[in-house]
Amino acid sequence: MMNNITEQDKHFLKMAIDLAVENIKSGGGPFGAVIVKNNEVVATGVNNVTTNNDPTAHAEISAIRNACEKLQDYQLEGCSIYSSCEPCPMCLGAIYWARPKKLVFAASKDDAASVGFDDSFIYNEIPKAIHERKLDTYQALQKEAYAPFEIWKNMEQKTEY
Amino acid sequence: MMNNITEQDKHFLKMAIDLAVENIKSGGGPFGAVIVKNNEVVATGVNNVTTNNDPTAHAEISAIRNACEKLQDYQLEGCSIYSSCEPCPMCLGAIYWARPKKLVFAASKDDAASVGFDDSFIYNEIPKAIHERKLDTYQALQKEAYAPFEIWKNMEQKTEY
Repeated sequence: MMNNITEQDKHFLKMAIDLAVENIKSGGGPFGAVIVKNNEVVATGVNNVTTNNDPTAHAEISAIRNACEKLQDYQLEGCSIYSSCEPCPMCLGAIYWARPKKLVFAASKDDAASVGFDDSFIYNEIPKAIHERKLDTYQALQKEAYAPFEIWKNMEQKTEY
Repeated sequence: MMNNITEQDKHFLKMAIDLAVENIKSGGGPFGAVIVKNNEVVATGVNNVTTNNDPTAHAEISAIRNACEKLQDYQLEGCSIYSSCEPCPMCLGAIYWARPKKLVFAASKDDAASVGFDDSFIYNEIPKAIHERKLDTYQALQKEAYAPFEIWKNMEQKTEY
């Protein structure tokens, strides 16, 4: 796989790692991300969970939100995402929804776990059946919940994604 | 499991479904979420992906961000999250990071898939090895990426989460 990594990829990945280092000095978490299109940086993001009181403010989520705002689009078509660390399931999910063409990361989720982050734990929880998860989870009103989907399905004018 | 669902749970879950219906009328996606603490609504959220050009603006992520801003905390201790639909991996990951005490949802991810949303596809991708995923994914500079973690590990004053 390393064959598909260019020097330019390494350059942007190193930038994401440098952002992670800088972010620690600003009181944030040790994570950074860079989004690139046509070899130019569109936006960057760092981890501001505790600094912004926002558990979703991981580096990749922040970078995606910044890039989408800049591009005025909800899709990152043709973009590459560089992250200092393997995205957690939340960020990986966000990346799938944003649909970039490529993801390059440096540290692994096990590296992240080794310094106290829950990434591996959450990766283990996601594929489990809901009654097997550590988080108390229940389903109810499934029939009633089809109402919004029924309206959505029958709408002629809607933006699908 | 249904034994653990109270009438109050159903009330808040119905509220999330109603938000989903209302949100379609405002041009958003068919999803709503409600966050409750001590039997009071702390915050709500709806899907504004296409309306806000933000692929992360799912109902649960929006509700979590709103609730954390209101509570001025990055954790939703003692809170319950009600979602009109089973959270996608991005939102489920966000819920794990926010650490509420309970999650209650109505429609299933297969219901969501049946009206065109990628939830099931992303659930299938997350547990795969990176070279087996549909998204081109590469790892590089793993050694260099340990630098921010090394600094983090050795810091005495830091907010862990």
